[in-house]
Parts: sequence; C-alpha cells; structure tokens
Amino acid sequence: MNWSQKQDLDLRERAQAVIPGGMYGHMHTALLPKEYPQYIRQGKGCHIWDYDGHEYIDYMCGYGPNLLGYGHATVESAVQAQLVEGDVLTGPSAVMIEAAETFVSMVSHAAWAMFCKNGTDATTMAMVMARAHTGREIILAARDAYHGAAPWCVPPLFSTGTLPQDRASIVYYDYNDPESLTDAFKAHDGKIAAVFAAPFRHDTFRDQEEPDAEYAKAARRLCDENGALLVIDDVRAGFRLARDCSWSTVGVEPDLSCWGKCIANGHPISAVLGREHVRAAASRIFVTGSFWFAAAPMAAAVATLKIIRDTDYLERIIAAGQALRTGLHEQALSHGFILKQTGPVQMPQILFEDDADFSKGYAWVTECIKRGVYLHPYHNMFLSTAHTPQDITKTLASTDEAFEVLAKMQHLDAIPPAYPLAPLFEKYMASLTAE
Amino acid sequence: MNWSQKQDLDLRERAQAVIPGGMYGHMHTALLPKEYPQYIRQGKGCHIWDYDGHEYIDYMCGYGPNLLGYGHATVESAVQAQLVEGDVLTGPSAVMIEAAETFVSMVSHAAWAMFCKNGTDATTMAMVMARAHTGREIILAARDAYHGAAPWCVPPLFSTGTLPQDRASIVYYDYNDPESLTDAFKAHDGKIAAVFAAPFRHDTFRDQEEPDAEYAKAARRLCDENGALLVIDDVRAGFRLARDCSWSTVGVEPDLSCWGKCIANGHPISAVLGREHVRAAASRIFVTGSFWFAAAPMAAAVATLKIIRDTDYLERIIAAGQALRTGLHEQALSHGFILKQTGPVQMPQILFEDDADFSKGYAWVTECIKRGVYLHPYHNMFLSTAHTPQDITKTLASTDEAFEVLAKMQHLDAIPPAYPLAPLFEKYMASLTAE
Repeated sequence: MNWSQKQDLDLRERAQAVIPGGMYGHMHTALLPKEYPQYIRQGKGCHIWDYDGHEYIDYMCGYGPNLLGYGHATVESAVQAQLVEGDVLTGPSAVMIEAAETFVSMVSHAAWAMFCKNGTDATTMAMVMARAHTGREIILAARDAYHGAAPWCVPPLFSTGTLPQDRASIVYYDYNDPESLTDAFKAHDGKIAAVFAAPFRHDTFRDQEEPDAEYAKAARRLCDENGALLVIDDVRAGFRLARDCSWSTVGVEPDLSCWGKCIANGHPISAVLGREHVRAAASRIFVTGSFWFAAAPMAAAVATLKIIRDTDYLERIIAAGQALRTGLHEQALSHGFILKQTGPVQMPQILFEDDADFSKGYAWVTECIKRGVYLHPYHNMFLSTAHTPQDITKTLASTDEAFEVLAKMQHLDAIPPAYPLAPLFEKYMASLTAE
Repeated sequence: MNWSQKQDLDLRERAQAVIPGGMYGHMHTALLPKEYPQYIRQGKGCHIWDYDGHEYIDYMCGYGPNLLGYGHATVESAVQAQLVEGDVLTGPSAVMIEAAETFVSMVSHAAWAMFCKNGTDATTMAMVMARAHTGREIILAARDAYHGAAPWCVPPLFSTGTLPQDRASIVYYDYNDPESLTDAFKAHDGKIAAVFAAPFRHDTFRDQEEPDAEYAKAARRLCDENGALLVIDDVRAGFRLARDCSWSTVGVEPDLSCWGKCIANGHPISAVLGREHVRAAASRIFVTGSFWFAAAPMAAAVATLKIIRDTDYLERIIAAGQALRTGLHEQALSHGFILKQTGPVQMPQILFEDDADFSKGYAWVTECIKRGVYLHPYHNMFLSTAHTPQDITKTLASTDEAFEVLAKMQHLDAIPPAYPLAPLFEKYMASLTAE
C-alpha cells in the first residue's frame, strides 16, 4: 500500500527550522509510527484531513476537546455571536456568570466555579486552594497519574529542567489501593491538604482501570476524617462519563473538581468547581491569566453545557464506543488476537495481549492509519457524538483489513519492533538506574 | 452627576452566588473606585460599553491584548477563515509553522519559537528551559516585578496557598541597579540559571522606569561571564515599544524572550522565543496544554504580526500616547496639579505628585470614568492603533472637566480617601510585620 507523506514531511522540515525539535507536547508524533501525519489541515465532525489528502476517522478528538464534533453548528454560532460583541475586553462579559451558573447547576458537588485556560491551570489552582483552605502542604497524587505539565506535576520521565523541590510536597499513592492511601495519611498525619484522583486510571502505556468503589469511598472518608480535600481531576474525562462530576458514577462527591478539554467543545477554557466550604479559600488565592476572562470561550461553554444537559449526547457516544468495542473484540478473535480494551467505551484504551514491546499494537494501528482510521497505540482515545454508526462500520472495515495484515505478518514472524518507542524506553530504563 | 450602575450591580450580585468573591484575578474591580463597571458588554476599536449603557474610551485595552482595536477586521477575518478549517484538532495545522516563521523573522535574537497559552506559561517555560540548559537552579528576578500568577512567581502579597519552597530558588535583585545584580551573581556563584527582566519597570502602584542602558548591558555581560541566560519578559510590553524584542531599544539581545497578550490582538496565545544555543534545551523539556496547538489563535498571530511588520501601527500608537501625555500635562498644571506620567507614552502610568495615599488619583479617575474615559489609578495603561486623534481630543475634554472637579474638591479639602485600597494596604502592612 502506497503511503504518500510528502506534504507532511515538507512541513516537518520547515518546522524543524523554527520550532525546537520540530514539535513539542502531547501532539508530537515522535513516538507514533512514522506513517502518522504530524500536521492536520482540517476537521469536521469526527473526520480529519492531513496535508497529503488523507482523510481519517479520528478517535483522538483533539486529545479530548472534541465532544460534539469539530465545527459543531450550535457551539460555533454562539462563538460567532459573542465575537461580534467582544472577546477579551477590559472586564469579563455577563456570559461568564451564565457559564458559572449553568456549570454549577449541573455538577452536584459544586456551589461555585472559577474559569481558567489550561487543564494545568485548573489542577494548580485546586492545589493552591487546598493549601489555602487547610493551611497544610502535602498533596497526595496517584503514582503515574497525569495532572498536567507544570513543574509540580509534569511526569517524572519528562521532568527535565524542573527541580526536586518542585515536587517536594507531592506524595504518591497507588490508584485503586485504599491501603496505600491509608498509609499515606498515617505517614503524613495532619499535613495532608488534598488527595488528587483521576476519575478512573487513564495513564499512558497501560490498561485503564475503573475506580473501585471501595477506593473511592476510602478516599472520601480519609479526607473527611483528616480535614483534607478530595480533588477529582476531571480535565480529561469530564462529561464523557456522566452529566455530572465523573465520580457521581461511584457515588462519591469531591470537594473540588478540575475541568477542561471538552467543556466548550474545543474552545479554550478550563475550570475548577467547588463545594461551599472551600469558597472562602478560593476567594483568597490570586490566580489569573491574560485570556482567562475571554467571552467567546465562555459562550462556547454555555452552548456546550446546555447540549450536555438537554440532549442524549452521552448515550450516543456510549453507543458508538460500545459498537466499536464489540466489533473490534470479535475481529481480533477471528484473526487470532486478544485485545485488551479497557476503560469506559467512550474513552477506550486498546492494547494487545502478549505485546509487552507494543510491536503488535504499533503494526496494527499503522495498518489502520493507512486505511483512514486514526487510533492511538498507547494513549486512551476519545469518541464524540459525531461518530455515527456509519463511521463505526467504516472503521471496522478498515480495522478488519488491518488485523488480516497483522495476522499475515505474525505468521511470517515479521512484525517489526515499535521503533519510535526505543528512545523513550531507553530514557525510562536510565531513570530506573538513576534511582 | 448621576451615575446609574443598576445592571452592573445586579450582575455582581448574581456573580457572588457562583464565583468566589464575585470575581478574581487582574480584572477584579474591588480595588478600583466603585463607579467602575465590573462587567463589559461590548468592545469595538478603543471603545467599550458596560451593561448600564455607558460608553468609554478604554485605556486598558483588555490589560494589553488589544493592540490594533477590538474586533480588528483583518485579524478577525483570519480567525474566521481558520475556524472553518479547524481549531483544536488531533495535531497542529501548518499555520503554526507560519506563525513561528513570521515571529522568528521579526525578532532579532530569535532562532525558534514555542507557543503556549498564558503569559505565565511562557515565563514558566523560560525558567524550565534555563534550568535545563544550565543544569542550575537559581533564577534572579527583580523585586516586585510581575512575571505571572503561578506559585513560583505570584506576587508575595497575593501568595495565599503557595509554599515558601515554591520560591526557594528565586532570588531577588533591584531593577535598574547593576550593583545588586553583580552582588547576586557573587552570592550565588555558579548557581544562577537565568536573569529575568521586564523590558522596563512596570510594577503597579509606582512610577514606571525606563531601563538604564548600564543596567541592561550589565545584565547581558554578567549572564555571558557566568553562563547564565538573560530572559526578557515581554508579555506585557512586547510590540508596544518596538517591532522587535523590547530591549532592542537599549541594544541588548536576550537569550530568551516571553510574549503574550497582544501578539494575536486578543486571541489566546503566548510564546517563548530563543537564541540558537538554547534550542537543544528547549527541545528537551516537556510542556503542553490542551489548547496550545489551536489553529485559530495562530492565524490571528500571523495576521497581527504582519500588521506589526508592515504598517506604521507603532508610530500611530506613540503619536496617540504623546498627544494624551502632552494634553494631560498642560491640563494638570492649569488646574494646579502635577502629574507623574511615567514609562513609554504608549503604556503610560499616571500618578499624582503629593498623593501617597492615591486619593487624588482615585478622585480624578472617578470623575473621568463618569465622563466616558476608562483610566487606571495604579496600573500602567495601554494605547492601541484604534485611539484616533478624535478619541484623544474627546478624552482630554473629559479629563479637563475631571481636573476642574478635583481642583474644587481640593479647595474645599474634600478629596475622599481611596477607600478600595484600604484592605490591600492593611494586608501589606501586616505582611511587613510578619517579616
């Protein structure tokens, strides 16, 4: 199968001149198979196009922000109408209040909202609020969980340029392990400001885990008993699991929740929501940003939140995710593979059994990308309301062909190593040795 | 003079219910005279409208982002065109490269660019890059300078919820004092990663200061001699002083420069630009954000940068600022006041002589706001290309009336205290006692 990448490679070469390493951050394709386009020209619904004319059904949704489809008419109309009035002005517009009112009315634990821009802004604000509220220092965070890219939370493997003291007051526990939480509270008695938890375990390179109810309830209880705050980092998963904070699914209300990505269907806004008793501390901290009070993303948030509240958006996303999961499961078996499809169907992680070096996964997604399906080999994916039954059917036709190719490769013992991962694993092994 | 604020007060009351303290951050009007509107309904050119029907000539420009006028046709067209193609997708669009190429071609010291969202993202990235590049910890920053709102840089008076260790590796020197820089390098020999400097001293509540050439050159020399990086935080002033990094005006090139606010005329994007020798370190750090690779703000940046490069935008802003300064100077004298108008005319700070408690300034801006002129009593202001000679004339008619009222108040010994500042000054005094 011919795979033309000339335009994309030309763009990468141009980028090398003016952007360090050619690209950076979570959208860098350096760790993906080389067939993946680095640059995306267009998006519509759940479809994206690269600069070489390839169209893909996109299962990354911009790494989350796309909940209702790229270029969603209702959301974009709200943005257009607001841009005519104004965006960043010398004060916020009334739509900020409407966004806060709408958001707070939808999230059970929330009495108030504060808006910011990055997901990292929201998690950092929650940390500062928890310290202001409790007068304590220590934040408990699950080992390997991603809570952003500031020096205090950037993943250790990527912490070049940060200092050990940036993380000096962060203590790690094991997700889904109530005992490790209990131990941490004992070891740092009276010093814990907050427990951070992702709504489910969505770390890269591993199977996702739903939260055990026992763990979630223990987190709540330990926080209550010790006067600490429970913070749910719903930046990645918010509104893909529930029309409420994601831990409503396990019956646990946090004190603070962090939101971002999809709350304005791709327009730049994030938020911290909180319970009444943290309001005073939240009002005493100083946080701000040049673009935080921009009105257009607030208008996009109001439009998106109302669709979340009033439509069957969630059931449609789940149905699409379920159809994909069921279809892939059957296909894999029929070709002699076992997939590990973990986490909620609307945010699937798809890995292969017996694939410690990710070679099967890499070979398979490479065949998929060449057939117009953009899957991710080690990061959880995202579905949207724009993923129609037709898109799923079309996807499954491509993935079936990809499994067929993979089966032939395996038969010939010709599945190549997942080359792009080599430098990362090398760095990882070096970091273990360093410890 | 009647001053109706019903709508604005109603909005504030609604906000109190769902936003801690009713508002937060740099656009909170708590420290401004009560006549200032908290909410802004609309912006066009250099004019803003509140919810009670008042129109103002706006000298804050959204606290900087508005360089070419709110709703600038060329910039907004570029945004519209990009939004049709896509904004936040599963990869950056080619416009990111064009933005980097255009930016780098305009800034003398720059070999590369990295984009982010908040000004604080840019300053934090520069800090992390400097540490990665040098393998050292300490950042020298000028006392009282504002470099953002993350725990490491938030102003001490507003540092509730942050920890002393957040600032443990930040050492303070005195702006415009080469000796204090020299002393800091001696005291921390071999440990200094970078010197941060604002392009000029634009701290709140005090006269602005242009950078002494001796200080700027000493900073460059000390960094060179000690292998540290010189970082210019041009987030606030960038492109209002020059079509290049602001220290091009004093003939000093930094290693890194931080940008934000006006580089896309209000659309949300910030950046770090750097010299060739820091490229490798910049490519080794991990920084990212959900919306950092959004294409619409990149398109806005390209459009804005080209206007900066190709038009007389800067001369027009300077002419407007000069006309305002000259006019105010004469008016003040004619009414028996002496103004301290400091900093570049395009970013004026306007304080009164013999006004330690800010009461004259507060009384005067209160009369101005009631006459349709939005000035700031303690923060530097911003002019834009949208401030026409007619706007300046209209402004001066209002300010003249305001001086007249102020002169009468003074004659009657009836200038009220600047009430909103009381809680801040109280907190400031308490912080001194605490030390």
